[in-house]
Amino acid sequence: MSALPQTSPVPRIDPDRLWASLMTLARLGATPKGGVCRLALTDLDRQGRDLVVGWLREAGCEIRIDAIGNVFAIRAGLRGKGMDGEGPSARPCADPADLAVAVGSHIDTQPTGGRFDGNYGVLAGVEVIRALNDAGLQTVRPICVAIWTNEEGTRFTPVMMGSGVYAGAFTLEHCLAQADREGVSVARALSDIGYAGHDSAPRFAAYFEPHIEQGPVLEAEGITIGAVEGALGQRWFDATVTGQDAHAGPTPLPMRRDALLAASRVVQLVRAIAAEAPDYARGTVGQLFVHPNSRNVIPGRVEFTVDLRNARDETLDAMAARLRADVARIAAEERVTIDLREVVYFPPCAFDPQLVAGIERHAALLGHSVRRLASGAGHDAVYVARTCPSAMIFVPCEGGISHNEIENAQPADIAAGAAVLLGAVLDAAAR
Amino acid sequence: MSALPQTSPVPRIDPDRLWASLMTLARLGATPKGGVCRLALTDLDRQGRDLVVGWLREAGCEIRIDAIGNVFAIRAGLRGKGMDGEGPSARPCADPADLAVAVGSHIDTQPTGGRFDGNYGVLAGVEVIRALNDAGLQTVRPICVAIWTNEEGTRFTPVMMGSGVYAGAFTLEHCLAQADREGVSVARALSDIGYAGHDSAPRFAAYFEPHIEQGPVLEAEGITIGAVEGALGQRWFDATVTGQDAHAGPTPLPMRRDALLAASRVVQLVRAIAAEAPDYARGTVGQLFVHPNSRNVIPGRVEFTVDLRNARDETLDAMAARLRADVARIAAEERVTIDLREVVYFPPCAFDPQLVAGIERHAALLGHSVRRLASGAGHDAVYVARTCPSAMIFVPCEGGISHNEIENAQPADIAAGAAVLLGAVLDAAAR
Repeated sequence: MSALPQTSPVPRIDPDRLWASLMTLARLGATPKGGVCRLALTDLDRQGRDLVVGWLREAGCEIRIDAIGNVFAIRAGLRGKGMDGEGPSARPCADPADLAVAVGSHIDTQPTGGRFDGNYGVLAGVEVIRALNDAGLQTVRPICVAIWTNEEGTRFTPVMMGSGVYAGAFTLEHCLAQADREGVSVARALSDIGYAGHDSAPRFAAYFEPHIEQGPVLEAEGITIGAVEGALGQRWFDATVTGQDAHAGPTPLPMRRDALLAASRVVQLVRAIAAEAPDYARGTVGQLFVHPNSRNVIPGRVEFTVDLRNARDETLDAMAARLRADVARIAAEERVTIDLREVVYFPPCAFDPQLVAGIERHAALLGHSVRRLASGAGHDAVYVARTCPSAMIFVPCEGGISHNEIENAQPADIAAGAAVLLGAVLDAAAR
Repeated sequence: MSALPQTSPVPRIDPDRLWASLMTLARLGATPKGGVCRLALTDLDRQGRDLVVGWLREAGCEIRIDAIGNVFAIRAGLRGKGMDGEGPSARPCADPADLAVAVGSHIDTQPTGGRFDGNYGVLAGVEVIRALNDAGLQTVRPICVAIWTNEEGTRFTPVMMGSGVYAGAFTLEHCLAQADREGVSVARALSDIGYAGHDSAPRFAAYFEPHIEQGPVLEAEGITIGAVEGALGQRWFDATVTGQDAHAGPTPLPMRRDALLAASRVVQLVRAIAAEAPDYARGTVGQLFVHPNSRNVIPGRVEFTVDLRNARDETLDAMAARLRADVARIAAEERVTIDLREVVYFPPCAFDPQLVAGIERHAALLGHSVRRLASGAGHDAVYVARTCPSAMIFVPCEGGISHNEIENAQPADIAAGAAVLLGAVLDAAAR
């Protein structure tokens, strides 16, 4: 492949080819209800990897696999291949001007997962490569398609393992030693499926991750493209309310120490904290257990969780501070104790403003409706963003439902997202 | 025994003898933690019945056992024995002026029950008989001590079986056919322990039931005697909130249909309904289940119970009406559905005002502090009150705790309640 003059045809993605690729990959691990079960590092995952890697090889890419099994398929640019040398001894190129522009996501799924989560991002990258090939266009920078290992975290923890190792969030050794319920380690599973690589991972000039929204906003508002500004930070808490269980009949209200009454006030509080905060605030009590949980006994103990999220760390901190203060007040008023412990903290991730603006611009150029939004869930892009300018492109999914066999998306939206991706990648790869 | 002149000694209960009787009975089925497990119609129940019946025979009572195993021990009065004839052919006496004044309760216990619940009422009755014997006093009306079968309802349902059959709340046939978990019927169990009787049950001129409060009011207020005005009516509901489960991250607050948020508002509502109602109102949500009950999933479904209680039927109706109306409003506001079904209704029971006033008067005469209160829980007296003027005498129990092996009461309070009982019985038996 060689550099082409400016008069080359404008590259366009092929919607039917992209959809066909998605449906072909979805046959590996297909479930009776129309979903996919292709857990990380199983033989089905190997089949999926082999299929996609085969397509990328056919498209002329050089395939590199790192020690945690991440796959990097590199289409050479005018300024280089994104790596110095060949094979195991290759190292990421030293000159930042030669770094690749990457598109990536994952192809492992939940046990009752869908056809689009993750797979769409990888196959949109494949389609970008194919569209460039069709147009005979060579970009200034190399283009890379990344397949990150074990994003879902169902078989092995932690979630987002491959991108986390790539970004230095976890050590390689820690992740290789993780075992599934049968005691099979990540190292063993990688070796078993032939994806225990030895290549160095390339660094990127920019990273894009197209994804179904996994939320209801775009569909509800009739908008095709989400230009994702960042991912929400999260603070998770475990709470235990201790009151006094007592017979519901003989115990007058003023003498009660009702743990559920106090907990129900905290459920309201969590909603109010989120409703009154800016910056994509979320607040959820998802889990709650009552003891002794008997119809005519005043609950003496309630355990529940609190999940606070926000796009800005300062706002998230303020939400957590208000939670602590108001929980203490409620405990005093209800004459119970409430033990509130923070158990998880993920900082917010801000995507690159220039890349986000580029996504908006390309959506507009193509005539697609677009809005900014935040990702409420975690994605590989959240870790990759620690290493290079990154952004995500969301497309609507039916009913906002994902991690479910009925997960669905419209072909037109899938195509639109890939077309916006192509424009944004071309911009970034030209600089 | 013969009629004695007015100059006979004043009868007095013997606190030590009453306490010793309680502790002796408590040895049958004693648990390591100081409680009692003596389930209805077991061999331990037989041992308990035989012990108490033996004491009552020794005290000169005639023993009658009806078809549901209720025991009636009758001390003759000047005007009769409360029955016409002798043995199986005896029938309750026809002349209301000859009806007995009864003291009763039960001696079956919870599996991890205490030493006082039920047993106190029966043994206070035994102590009244003994005190009358000591004083050589014959009352105008006969005195009866009643031991009701299966009040606790742990082994066989329904609860308050013996008094319920006595009052016509259940048919004898229905109750005899009830089986425990091993398939043993009430009829078989009664026969096995020798308490399948054939005697008719006597009717009463008045019925008294002394009992530990099973609530915290008397202890907290430092009051010795509760003059129980009645038992609270109960309306129990099952509620199911159906919203939409969704990922806690991507779903903005305005798009949520959070079943737990709606349920927590109903928990608050139930408390408010009770707090704002007169007449000993209670409102409790004791049981609550969240689905799918996962930390980062907005709850799509919550099931919970509502227990409303009140001393007056009109007020209880108004509480239920407000519950229904406000639940409908909350459902609309939270964009969920709430299915609210009433599953149990017990009407309130008002005890006899004259008997209640008599209990207050005798408490005052004996120098004991006294207050009126309502029984929040069910008792045999609630059914017996359908057949004759009835009342209950409450004494404090430690921490308001019962149905528990650590159930406890102070000997002085136990004695005080029996002394008040004696005075009230003498009043009623003199008319």
